[in-house]
Amino acid sequence: MQKVLVLYGSSRENGNSEKLADRVVEGLGATKIYLREHAITPIHDKRHTEEGFQPVDDDYDSIVHQMLAHDVIIFATPVYWYGMSGIMKNFIDRWSQSLRDRSLSFKEKMGHKTAYVVMTGYDQAKLKGLPLVQQFQHIFEFVTTTYGGYIIGEGNKPDDILVDESALFEADKLNRRLRGETAQ
Amino acid sequence: MQKVLVLYGSSRENGNSEKLADRVVEGLGATKIYLREHAITPIHDKRHTEEGFQPVDDDYDSIVHQMLAHDVIIFATPVYWYGMSGIMKNFIDRWSQSLRDRSLSFKEKMGHKTAYVVMTGYDQAKLKGLPLVQQFQHIFEFVTTTYGGYIIGEGNKPDDILVDESALFEADKLNRRLRGETAQ
Amino acid sequence: MQKVLVLYGSSRENGNSEKLADRVVEGLGATKIYLREHAITPIHDKRHTEEGFQPVDDDYDSIVHQMLAHDVIIFATPVYWYGMSGIMKNFIDRWSQSLRDRSLSFKEKMGHKTAYVVMTGYDQAKLKGLPLVQQFQHIFEFVTTTYGGYIIGEGNKPDDILVDESALFEADKLNRRLRGETAQ
Amino acid sequence: MQKVLVLYGSSRENGNSEKLADRVVEGLGATKIYLREHAITPIHDKRHTEEGFQPVDDDYDSIVHQMLAHDVIIFATPVYWYGMSGIMKNFIDRWSQSLRDRSLSFKEKMGHKTAYVVMTGYDQAKLKGLPLVQQFQHIFEFVTTTYGGYIIGEGNKPDDILVDESALFEADKLNRRLRGETAQ
Repeated sequence: MQKVLVLYGSSRENGNSEKLADRVVEGLGATKIYLREHAITPIHDKRHTEEGFQPVDDDYDSIVHQMLAHDVIIFATPVYWYGMSGIMKNFIDRWSQSLRDRSLSFKEKMGHKTAYVVMTGYDQAKLKGLPLVQQFQHIFEFVTTTYGGYIIGEGNKPDDILVDESALFEADKLNRRLRGETAQ
Repeated sequence: MQKVLVLYGSSRENGNSEKLADRVVEGLGATKIYLREHAITPIHDKRHTEEGFQPVDDDYDSIVHQMLAHDVIIFATPVYWYGMSGIMKNFIDRWSQSLRDRSLSFKEKMGHKTAYVVMTGYDQAKLKGLPLVQQFQHIFEFVTTTYGGYIIGEGNKPDDILVDESALFEADKLNRRLRGETAQ
Repeated sequence: MQKVLVLYGSSRENGNSEKLADRVVEGLGATKIYLREHAITPIHDKRHTEEGFQPVDDDYDSIVHQMLAHDVIIFATPVYWYGMSGIMKNFIDRWSQSLRDRSLSFKEKMGHKTAYVVMTGYDQAKLKGLPLVQQFQHIFEFVTTTYGGYIIGEGNKPDDILVDESALFEADKLNRRLRGETAQ
Repeated sequence: MQKVLVLYGSSRENGNSEKLADRVVEGLGATKIYLREHAITPIHDKRHTEEGFQPVDDDYDSIVHQMLAHDVIIFATPVYWYGMSGIMKNFIDRWSQSLRDRSLSFKEKMGHKTAYVVMTGYDQAKLKGLPLVQQFQHIFEFVTTTYGGYIIGEGNKPDDILVDESALFEADKLNRRLRGETAQ
């Protein structure tokens, strides 16, 4: 049975990206991590120092362990300034540290996962959100994670997403697919 | 006389993006802000709450005031995971708050500025860094800032950038252009 | 009442992009032009010559006149090598000639139209077709045409598109929207 | 010794992309093919028909044989409507036919080549030409050709390219690299 994790990147509760992702995982018993509720320090790049990366006393390690323990990872983020939210970016930036932590086998484990991106934005999100879709393409390619697909919802004010028929259709379709997989 | 500001997004000192940007502004008396030395809280999206955005006790306001007081803004960032660094993204995310602070006239002032992006990365940065170039295109378009240009350097290990002839050529060329402008 | 035109860029009959576009315009009385049935000479760039562009004896003028006489233009193309088909590109390249033909008021008229892109492809069309989505964004921006949206269908073998639920959903939704508009 | 081929996609003689590419191959004894001087019929997609692709009586086969006999291929094209020229696209579209011609070993041979893209355009070519850079990325990836790099020159009127210092610098640098390789 496939284990599904949602990483929520929004800074506010019940935002559009959160609601859309919730619809994707409805009834799946997914693990939900709200990045805004955790302390994740921005990366301090120590790749080229003698001492290397040092342990950081924050919630990153715990979250990355959870991520590695799931099969399907859903990155749910509002489109902030045509990119993922800063708190989600801080999380992903830290992967550079995990890549160098041999005890994690980070890349190898990521290579067995499937990732989806659920994003919502306004100002022509379906056009201007495309660089973010492509950024994730490069990210997943680097860690050899399968890019299962993406959903771009349009919304600005609370609950706008609930009238975006296309996004809801895609969310429901992905839900059915994941149900099929998680039932296996 | 044009006033030039560099915003450094790297998490480490003397990194490749920093050296490349320093070459761009050599002799220009540019103001230099190292985002890693400042506390910038990730945005808490309060656009749709009754109380609206609340003052945050960190260094953001001071930096944004400095940014608004310059004519040319150089965004210098390493390409972390095919995007700008999380600390730079945290800074830009907060612009949403500034947009709603009428005392700033944020968008109007940004509309009179010219921005450049100086980025360095590896793993085919000149191809896989393109979504970041495009993201900045949408960002600057939104605030009606002129996108003066971008330089993509290739480098991973310290000082790699010093052998990237193309990036150095572009940096020197931009330096001459800015010298001409700042001399006016 | 809105007049709808479909420009089909496929080289074969009843291909996936054709079927998807047909579903978009079902019942709308749309004009249909199959570019493959027409002779359209590649552009010969004469912008910088003394004599300027010369009349070309082919079907281009007739098609461009039809295009200008419609309100909604649907560009239906298979994704060939991650771009529009060569025959559709040949047609669009010739717009450079029309831009210089004052009798057409080409740009002004295009500025009053809404365009949609319907494309089908395989090899991860929803990711690797994105440069084509963005190319059309720049094209429409240049002639100030409203970019109403795009549909990316996945299909390779004949009729694959008929099982792409997402593409069919989008096609039906766009059909309803256009019906609403054409009924006005 | 490396054999270099330039495929010129411009519709006019001595255009900017041609001059820039000529600078890239100066002194290299490169083979030069001007696509505008050849008859290349747009692809007729016969992949899914019983008879399959049929021989076409035009210059395509001859050109593709020459391409396969070289080690380095330079695609030189003006940016027409934010893409490669229609005549170059017609040529590439036909690769679908070559892929199915077992006598060619098309993909295998392409996998041993290195390709460069030399493009010139105006209207912010260094930003709006990026979808074309990405399209070539997908094209080369598909045929497993090494993407050696790209040069985006800015130019509209004849000889504009001769004052684009950056493009000339890149052209000269690539020339030196290719000289080194062809001398081996």
